[in-house]
Amino acid sequence: VARRRGTEALSSATLANLRRVSTATLTTQLFKRGLRNTFIHGVRRISRPGPNLVGPAFTLRNIPSREDLDQLKVFEDPEHPQRKSIETVPAGHVLVVDCRGDTRAASAGGILLARLEVRGAAGFVSDGCVRDTPEIAGMAFPVFCAGGSAPLNLVRHHAADFQRPIGCGGVAVYPGDVIVGDGEGVVVVPARLADEVAADAAEQESLESFVIEEIKAGKALPGVYPPNDATRARYAQWKRKQTKK
Amino acid sequence: VARRRGTEALSSATLANLRRVSTATLTTQLFKRGLRNTFIHGVRRISRPGPNLVGPAFTLRNIPSREDLDQLKVFEDPEHPQRKSIETVPAGHVLVVDCRGDTRAASAGGILLARLEVRGAAGFVSDGCVRDTPEIAGMAFPVFCAGGSAPLNLVRHHAADFQRPIGCGGVAVYPGDVIVGDGEGVVVVPARLADEVAADAAEQESLESFVIEEIKAGKALPGVYPPNDATRARYAQWKRKQTKK
Amino acid sequence: VARRRGTEALSSATLANLRRVSTATLTTQLFKRGLRNTFIHGVRRISRPGPNLVGPAFTLRNIPSREDLDQLKVFEDPEHPQRKSIETVPAGHVLVVDCRGDTRAASAGGILLARLEVRGAAGFVSDGCVRDTPEIAGMAFPVFCAGGSAPLNLVRHHAADFQRPIGCGGVAVYPGDVIVGDGEGVVVVPARLADEVAADAAEQESLESFVIEEIKAGKALPGVYPPNDATRARYAQWKRKQTKK
Amino acid sequence: VARRRGTEALSSATLANLRRVSTATLTTQLFKRGLRNTFIHGVRRISRPGPNLVGPAFTLRNIPSREDLDQLKVFEDPEHPQRKSIETVPAGHVLVVDCRGDTRAASAGGILLARLEVRGAAGFVSDGCVRDTPEIAGMAFPVFCAGGSAPLNLVRHHAADFQRPIGCGGVAVYPGDVIVGDGEGVVVVPARLADEVAADAAEQESLESFVIEEIKAGKALPGVYPPNDATRARYAQWKRKQTKK
Amino acid sequence: VARRRGTEALSSATLANLRRVSTATLTTQLFKRGLRNTFIHGVRRISRPGPNLVGPAFTLRNIPSREDLDQLKVFEDPEHPQRKSIETVPAGHVLVVDCRGDTRAASAGGILLARLEVRGAAGFVSDGCVRDTPEIAGMAFPVFCAGGSAPLNLVRHHAADFQRPIGCGGVAVYPGDVIVGDGEGVVVVPARLADEVAADAAEQESLESFVIEEIKAGKALPGVYPPNDATRARYAQWKRKQTKK
Amino acid sequence: VARRRGTEALSSATLANLRRVSTATLTTQLFKRGLRNTFIHGVRRISRPGPNLVGPAFTLRNIPSREDLDQLKVFEDPEHPQRKSIETVPAGHVLVVDCRGDTRAASAGGILLARLEVRGAAGFVSDGCVRDTPEIAGMAFPVFCAGGSAPLNLVRHHAADFQRPIGCGGVAVYPGDVIVGDGEGVVVVPARLADEVAADAAEQESLESFVIEEIKAGKALPGVYPPNDATRARYAQWKRKQTKK
Repeated sequence: VARRRGTEALSSATLANLRRVSTATLTTQLFKRGLRNTFIHGVRRISRPGPNLVGPAFTLRNIPSREDLDQLKVFEDPEHPQRKSIETVPAGHVLVVDCRGDTRAASAGGILLARLEVRGAAGFVSDGCVRDTPEIAGMAFPVFCAGGSAPLNLVRHHAADFQRPIGCGGVAVYPGDVIVGDGEGVVVVPARLADEVAADAAEQESLESFVIEEIKAGKALPGVYPPNDATRARYAQWKRKQTKK
Repeated sequence: VARRRGTEALSSATLANLRRVSTATLTTQLFKRGLRNTFIHGVRRISRPGPNLVGPAFTLRNIPSREDLDQLKVFEDPEHPQRKSIETVPAGHVLVVDCRGDTRAASAGGILLARLEVRGAAGFVSDGCVRDTPEIAGMAFPVFCAGGSAPLNLVRHHAADFQRPIGCGGVAVYPGDVIVGDGEGVVVVPARLADEVAADAAEQESLESFVIEEIKAGKALPGVYPPNDATRARYAQWKRKQTKK
Repeated sequence: VARRRGTEALSSATLANLRRVSTATLTTQLFKRGLRNTFIHGVRRISRPGPNLVGPAFTLRNIPSREDLDQLKVFEDPEHPQRKSIETVPAGHVLVVDCRGDTRAASAGGILLARLEVRGAAGFVSDGCVRDTPEIAGMAFPVFCAGGSAPLNLVRHHAADFQRPIGCGGVAVYPGDVIVGDGEGVVVVPARLADEVAADAAEQESLESFVIEEIKAGKALPGVYPPNDATRARYAQWKRKQTKK
Repeated sequence: VARRRGTEALSSATLANLRRVSTATLTTQLFKRGLRNTFIHGVRRISRPGPNLVGPAFTLRNIPSREDLDQLKVFEDPEHPQRKSIETVPAGHVLVVDCRGDTRAASAGGILLARLEVRGAAGFVSDGCVRDTPEIAGMAFPVFCAGGSAPLNLVRHHAADFQRPIGCGGVAVYPGDVIVGDGEGVVVVPARLADEVAADAAEQESLESFVIEEIKAGKALPGVYPPNDATRARYAQWKRKQTKK
Repeated sequence: VARRRGTEALSSATLANLRRVSTATLTTQLFKRGLRNTFIHGVRRISRPGPNLVGPAFTLRNIPSREDLDQLKVFEDPEHPQRKSIETVPAGHVLVVDCRGDTRAASAGGILLARLEVRGAAGFVSDGCVRDTPEIAGMAFPVFCAGGSAPLNLVRHHAADFQRPIGCGGVAVYPGDVIVGDGEGVVVVPARLADEVAADAAEQESLESFVIEEIKAGKALPGVYPPNDATRARYAQWKRKQTKK
Repeated sequence: VARRRGTEALSSATLANLRRVSTATLTTQLFKRGLRNTFIHGVRRISRPGPNLVGPAFTLRNIPSREDLDQLKVFEDPEHPQRKSIETVPAGHVLVVDCRGDTRAASAGGILLARLEVRGAAGFVSDGCVRDTPEIAGMAFPVFCAGGSAPLNLVRHHAADFQRPIGCGGVAVYPGDVIVGDGEGVVVVPARLADEVAADAAEQESLESFVIEEIKAGKALPGVYPPNDATRARYAQWKRKQTKK
């Protein structure tokens, strides 16, 4: 099965939709399609707040480190998978890192994240930690992880390989899956579903904008959320007005 | 045993006291009465900082969800316990939700919390998460929970019933118990103790205001904190001055 | 082995170095010396952001509390180890508290931390929580811990003794070890290594300032990070220019 | 929805099937019907090994205890939910107890389990612990739980009510759901699915008896497990022979 | 407060009582005296089943190990606290070890436990693991711990000191506290309560022997467990008969 | 680096040594060489007790499952990595499975383990669970895992690939590493160290056999364990006698 898809393959409509919908809405659309486990557990944006992170996943996998293999000199090898993955991730893609949820070491730091930004990566997601978080807090580059942890990766992590399926925060991530991150966290959208999920999510949010207006105006939940036919009719009218604006 | 008590039954003195004391002080007063487990574990205010949340508990209970029972269509039923509880909680009460500490799904979102606010509820407390946290961060309505999690409740939670005793963050919550939340978290005050605990907490904080003045002026802990007779005498004098102001 | 060393024994060069390097850099220097477990897990600064916390450790140890022994009256005894340790910690030292990672009670509160500040302690580190966190958030005094928890210490903790070796956040802390805290967390530097680690960390950060300039200017990682001979030569030149400024 | 069903309502064919199939097989049948979360986590048989436990669930719910409410005298009240549930569970039913997975106290002991056995209950399942485990190890009565814990229930648990939906080991249990326990653990079969799941499980095990014979005789997995048409044909023949025996 | 008491100080009546009652009964007696947290969490007997372990606690404390300090050569020092404590524990006492609940290394092995047995220690309790468990399974010497873990202690543990108050499995243990272990686990009886708790526990078990006879004969719980006056009268009669036998 | 090595490459001396030494001894030998994290956490033998499991690792890796990809039909594909790995593992090798420590589903069952046995695999190790444990308890084939869990793997696990480096129970496992399992658990010996570690472990156990004789005869620890020169001299003499027998 060809699961990989470059950013170029994300239609501009899908990109636009994914940039404005929330991860909450996306999980509902995925739930409707039978997918219940799509939100990466325990991860939040630690760099400067900004627009949604959107891009295809480029995956990096760590296993536990071993004292004899994981010494500082490994980084002198340009083929070291952590360094190589950073130099390889295509522009617009998101580096997604499997740390087995271990938060006792960093999976990247200020220099590597700066390099990712320069290379045009869309962002960085790890179910472990990163180091240099006081500096990273000021970066515009989207960094999502479990928090800050000073020790270098070698204390816990051995970068084993990249661009293979991984787990991240309890969720399966296949290379090319579409990653979306907002102020709540990160959702993984299977590549084949990205277009329809993005379109339906945008429509859902349009409806919910109307619903919340009604709720704030004092309407009760029954019939409004979820909407019955009468509410849907009012929504259709509201939407026509919105479009005119 | 009649454990329930409406907000109207909280005397204005008790309300005033609970609105100005800290949860830290309240746990000390409860500890003096033999209650050691009264602070909801793992919960913090995620909406805009503001005055203390105070109000009687209105409880909602979740159990693990089941794929065949917990589909989106359940929300079309106005008797669904989550929706019904929101439409039923009396003004001034706090909706307290038992999520078994499971943080992998939301227990409410922006629309439901907006409805709670419109209905005059005092606040929302959950030992699970909520969704739409970027929006909720701007709400004045007091929302205390374990954090943000995008997936809708059905992924993990089945709303089973409301207004029954529950556990929340490891603490027993009976309908009508008085909930107090501040910038540190949420304490559960048994209804029958609310008046005396509130009064004694206010007095304790008055004394501690004096103590911290003395400490900042250079006094050592022994005899001052806790205060011996000499310190209590100085406090009495200080208090008379405060009252005159 | 004489492991204790007063602040006066920290050379001014070492103090200056430790005040400007990050905990991330220090863990790398310790890793080079074979120490992999030096960063206190699960702790962050909860008081006002500020310069690095630096000072020798003065340790306090808690064990689980017992209902008959741990009642409020214990604080009337000036020899109570929690209170005594606060009155004993030398100026410039850091009170480091072993709470066995239990976050269900406080290990200190606003009054005790105010006393520590008045006494000239350098800061406070605990792998448990503290209470009165809304006030402490405004203190300049460095307070690092697992977060806020309202219940007083007696609910979970019995202060057993002080100035003995402890564990804190999974790391061994010996009295006199040098504690360094920044916006990422807290690292424990064994006393005998403090001078050389501080010096090497300062040099490492100088090099990394140069490296990040090159990375931001578009250089790729290989040969730059870690630096090869050519990069080191450019760095030497850059450093001479820096010194001239 | 009428979810409750007495033992009498379990057809003898269903009972016979459930008594001879494994919980492993039942989870596969439930998976085929879209139910992925049906096996109670962390529970094992601690009484004498014996035939499968089979019976409808009769549920008991605990919340965290509170020092003032949960004193020994509560057991003098015959309406106390723990005691009342034991005196009420119909013959052939299984008492299933929600302890929120807390293993620091017992949810029953030797005397209560003896009473359950005398009353004709089919068994006992708890996601907490029980006490008196050295004696219970010799009982034929099926007791499944998380292990032994000496402290009486009041230390952690307040029996709140019975015959309401509960969570047990992370699984939803509705009164009347069919509980099946074997040497591996306990599965919860929704009442409405019991007949078909039992029948299909029995057929699956018949096929697997044949498959394991072939595997032990040296056949490779492909085509045999899962079986292709040729294997199914051999199985049909084998089954005819079995029936003749 | 003089909390230590040698075995010689345990009266023969108390010893006899503690050897025949269960840890479950002892926790109930301690609960009656306001002590709710007395049962060591997560520990079981891993040596050959046998009579109750009874003896005063002799405590050993571990903190996290550090690579430079905790090398094999430390054992050459006869003052090393682990080795020294084994050579010092008085006959009849129980070595109780604080491992902070860390199960990733051993806290003792076959040779050290053999030495403890030869020295006449009553037993060994650790909230960590031990190594050489296949051999230890055959020892009569009572060994209670969290299970087997092959790596030597130095991987995780640094023996810091002995005969100081410790935590073990979440429970406070003071030197001289009376340790009782049975097939369910280990309870810590404060030294000053040992005599009365032992006596009352023996009487409680006598009553419960009668109660369980009645329950097995078909009596319902109300009035029997807990016993009302009529049941207590029958018990008095039964006891007189037992004594005559 | 050529890390893989077939069983055939394990010298008969090494095999013989590894079959008679304990995992405890092996971890000490690895600790001497700077390796502290070599014992798979949370795994025990669940099949019939027997001689040591010894063989090179053949690795299988699972990631979290996804509802649309992980349906029963996947097993019809002979290339499915779980099935393919079982049909591929060379005789004498150990199938080692990475389940991310998730114990809520099986990683194998009776039929697959029977196939492994028929194919001549040395054994099976998983940091997850297996199903059909009541049957497996009677198998001579060495099965080490976290316990029994009925649900089929697809509920949690997607077999991603095999013969790549993995983590298992917190330890790095490279294909070809030598796996040794005994009644305590499983240790991972890096391939390049297998010969020397095996020889030194055998010698260490010889010495310890002597030491334990002396300890049982009443010798104190100092000078005996670890042995000083005098003890080593007695050991040399003892060993000569042993050899003569």
